[in-house]
Amino acid sequence: MTAAALHLFDKHEASLRAAGTACRERSYFTLFSETPDRHRGGASAADAGAAAFRAQLGHRFELDQPGTIGRLGDEVSPYTLEALGIDYPRADVDALFTAARLAMSPWAVATPQARLGVCMEIVDRLYDGVFESAQAVMHTAGQSGPMSYAGSGTNALDRGVEALAYAHAAMTDVPREALWERRFGSTTIRLRKRYQLVPRGVAVCFTCATFPTWNAYPAMLASLATGNAVIVKPHPTAILPMALAVRTCREVLAAAGFSPDLVTLCLDTVAEPVGKLLIKHPQTAIVDFTGSARFGAWVEQNAHPASSYTETSGVNTVVLESMDDLESVARSLAVTMNLFSAQMCTSPQNIYVPRGGVAVGGRRASVDEVCDALATAFRAVVAEPKRAASILAAVQSPATLDLLGRLRESGVRRGAILLDSAPYTHPDFPAARTATPLLLRVAPDARDLYCEERFGPIGFLIETDDAAGALESATADVRAAGGITAFVYSQRDEFLAAAEAAYAVAGAQLTCNLTGAMPLNFAASYSDYHVTGLNPAGNATLTDASFVAARFRIAQSRRPVA
Amino acid sequence: MTAAALHLFDKHEASLRAAGTACRERSYFTLFSETPDRHRGGASAADAGAAAFRAQLGHRFELDQPGTIGRLGDEVSPYTLEALGIDYPRADVDALFTAARLAMSPWAVATPQARLGVCMEIVDRLYDGVFESAQAVMHTAGQSGPMSYAGSGTNALDRGVEALAYAHAAMTDVPREALWERRFGSTTIRLRKRYQLVPRGVAVCFTCATFPTWNAYPAMLASLATGNAVIVKPHPTAILPMALAVRTCREVLAAAGFSPDLVTLCLDTVAEPVGKLLIKHPQTAIVDFTGSARFGAWVEQNAHPASSYTETSGVNTVVLESMDDLESVARSLAVTMNLFSAQMCTSPQNIYVPRGGVAVGGRRASVDEVCDALATAFRAVVAEPKRAASILAAVQSPATLDLLGRLRESGVRRGAILLDSAPYTHPDFPAARTATPLLLRVAPDARDLYCEERFGPIGFLIETDDAAGALESATADVRAAGGITAFVYSQRDEFLAAAEAAYAVAGAQLTCNLTGAMPLNFAASYSDYHVTGLNPAGNATLTDASFVAARFRIAQSRRPVA
Repeated sequence: MTAAALHLFDKHEASLRAAGTACRERSYFTLFSETPDRHRGGASAADAGAAAFRAQLGHRFELDQPGTIGRLGDEVSPYTLEALGIDYPRADVDALFTAARLAMSPWAVATPQARLGVCMEIVDRLYDGVFESAQAVMHTAGQSGPMSYAGSGTNALDRGVEALAYAHAAMTDVPREALWERRFGSTTIRLRKRYQLVPRGVAVCFTCATFPTWNAYPAMLASLATGNAVIVKPHPTAILPMALAVRTCREVLAAAGFSPDLVTLCLDTVAEPVGKLLIKHPQTAIVDFTGSARFGAWVEQNAHPASSYTETSGVNTVVLESMDDLESVARSLAVTMNLFSAQMCTSPQNIYVPRGGVAVGGRRASVDEVCDALATAFRAVVAEPKRAASILAAVQSPATLDLLGRLRESGVRRGAILLDSAPYTHPDFPAARTATPLLLRVAPDARDLYCEERFGPIGFLIETDDAAGALESATADVRAAGGITAFVYSQRDEFLAAAEAAYAVAGAQLTCNLTGAMPLNFAASYSDYHVTGLNPAGNATLTDASFVAARFRIAQSRRPVA
Repeated sequence: MTAAALHLFDKHEASLRAAGTACRERSYFTLFSETPDRHRGGASAADAGAAAFRAQLGHRFELDQPGTIGRLGDEVSPYTLEALGIDYPRADVDALFTAARLAMSPWAVATPQARLGVCMEIVDRLYDGVFESAQAVMHTAGQSGPMSYAGSGTNALDRGVEALAYAHAAMTDVPREALWERRFGSTTIRLRKRYQLVPRGVAVCFTCATFPTWNAYPAMLASLATGNAVIVKPHPTAILPMALAVRTCREVLAAAGFSPDLVTLCLDTVAEPVGKLLIKHPQTAIVDFTGSARFGAWVEQNAHPASSYTETSGVNTVVLESMDDLESVARSLAVTMNLFSAQMCTSPQNIYVPRGGVAVGGRRASVDEVCDALATAFRAVVAEPKRAASILAAVQSPATLDLLGRLRESGVRRGAILLDSAPYTHPDFPAARTATPLLLRVAPDARDLYCEERFGPIGFLIETDDAAGALESATADVRAAGGITAFVYSQRDEFLAAAEAAYAVAGAQLTCNLTGAMPLNFAASYSDYHVTGLNPAGNATLTDASFVAARFRIAQSRRPVA
């Protein structure tokens, strides 16, 4: 089996090494064409992917894995509000662990190169299937077509390769053997030492409802490459993207001569969750979790003796101090805060503005003026259905609509509604669950409203005493509630320096003075570190050395040689 | 301040780089002469160290650190059974954390090079003070003079430098900045990205009673180098070695222009422990723990949100299958199992022997014969007081004598006493607390006796059905009770291969067929990985990338450039 796998390593080695170089240099890099029209499969690949997705609708999902005790699945498309009609195998949890442990023995002792070769081939095959996967993401998470291709497809695959590059570096750092000699008294002891990388065990990878692949690919590939098995536990509302990924992993593993049971799918229902059972299972050695901050904190506290890697949520903050052009800032914020209806862990939520207004060019714009500019820019995004659809896409969960309703009420009581939320009519999917953003203006004392993640298209404009107070409040809220991204606009070098220092301590990744075509919260694989681990928004970074280095351990054996 | 620190980096850079090379190659390396007579200070350094220790006895330990609310200290020398008569500052815990946080701000933003320079200078100064420290170790832990110099001195310092080399590599892996550009639609976005290493916060380092410096130096230096502050919490019976180390750290930090409060000492008493308070303190970000498996498990479970690095204890196992020469194996086991009265986390405890005996040269030696050979070899170690003293040294805790008494009783009831324990008279310290080993022969069903660490000079010979059963029992016991080292004697390649595979999974570091002048459990800095993290004997390895990579996090800031 190793021959096939090593062939795969040879096939992908140049890509893996280039990715490693990119990780060290952090400049722009991708292994993939980022627009569908440049996919190596051509237009026929797009058609075939869409056809495969359509053919799957209403049918059982074929996944030949052990321990099947039934079938389940009740996904609903946020675009059509119709059931996908797909049922998946429901697995006996113990049977998955038993199969995973059995499968691990030969995988654990395969060389890192062999495992990396297989993992890179998995990435390659996932790229082949990216159009089908994009449809699956679209009709479970509610992402737009372009985002489900680029964000959940190629960018997520790059993030996976990034994790593989770090795994490659970490494993290469441990030599296979060494010759050691030293005098003890009058004799020389000469020992040949062998070092063996030992996987931790079975990893459980929890994926979220709105962006499943983006965190899953790095976690699954990092665990696999370092010799572990992976049980994937998708959110019950977004199974299909992960079922496709699991099936691809199993096919590649089997073709390379390894057991497909290194990657399996474990499903549950909202009514009967298995999450805690998986985390506390005696065979669980690693937990990767993406989801709510509340359950993420439970994972971090209860995963022991398994190690845990979490990415949850938080309040992403914007501080406005001064700028050249208010309209371009408002436009960038509007696009970013509308993007995928702010159902991303990187979406900004809270905008902190000094009560005295912000300096714009040579003059001062009042808070009212800032509010107007934001409302105008937001309206421009949502006014035209085609543009709204391309940016807002659909709302994944009906719970988000309930939340909007509750916060609208609070907003009226506690502050002012700058822009009210309303459904918009998607041009291609008239039944789509949609909502334009709710933008509230509140005083700092409404912290109970804004100092927690409000998942969905909800923004707060918070008046503070002054610019220093804006920065202080924003970073305090990040430290308290967590935060992944942050955005500051200032023309003053000393303010930017203070912001860099304060956000570094608070642990949110900062973007300064950005306007223009790039969504403010765009995270570039190989270049942007995602999540610092310094605040409640998660304990793991995609991807740094610490994301991979503890997924394997080092055993050694030494013996005398002449 | 950075200029002074950078000068220190220049001074020590070649040593640090050589250590880094050694870590990657894992061949023999040291920065120090391993015998006292080759210390760079010459004979006068040894005399001065001994004199400093004597002068300290009966006097207050001068340590000018914040938050002192009293004095305490009641250490007793295991060699003289007399009180050292030294009292140390007792600190208000909150005051130490406040001082540490204040001290951290400039330290956190100093360059990695500046911090590494200071840390290497600390090592250098600890080497200057190694003779005094060795006396302190001897008269608190009970180690022999040579061990307290080499094991707790130079070897521990090398282990510290090893951690610094890994910290250097991990921090160097993150670039300071990058230029990133990509097309978005028709425009190019060009961002300058800055990456900043952010320390986790305040680290608490718990040190043990019998080998305090060996785990403390790597932990303290790894935390410091990555920008954290360290509060050192010594075992109440072995304060002096750590008080000396803390004082040295503070002096070097202050001389380099940093706050000495980056390293402080936090003491408690057996009656009023502060351990859990420190671990659950809201400011605690990292816990390094060396000590009992029971408290270590508590640390791992309760340290969250702090990250924890533990090294506790376990049953270290020996499997006898076949050998050339029974006497040389027995001699090596006798020396190693007597070394420092087996008060090391690497001391072998359980010897598994097939009921049918072991192949020796061309013939089969019965279990009785093996027992006789071991008893003879053990007696040879302890028979002559001078030799006994150089190997056994003293017993750190009176509790060990109680344990010997209890296990002697159990041994009579449950098996046979192959060799009884007795005090021996130390030639230089007639009052010394000493005990020769208790060696028991038991059946496999006495697992309640032998399948846990029995800290002190206690060994078990366990009869198993056959050689495969011996290996199976030994590795099962390691998985259940933990284990750091393991030893196998076999002339059969397939048995050695099976042992390598089984111990790799169980997570004990294996030594095969070693006899001769090197103590079997000798762990070489830069070459031997200590603790795998795969069993209950601890979750951290001295030293691998995962020991350092998560002690800092990465914050980034990006902004547009023309």
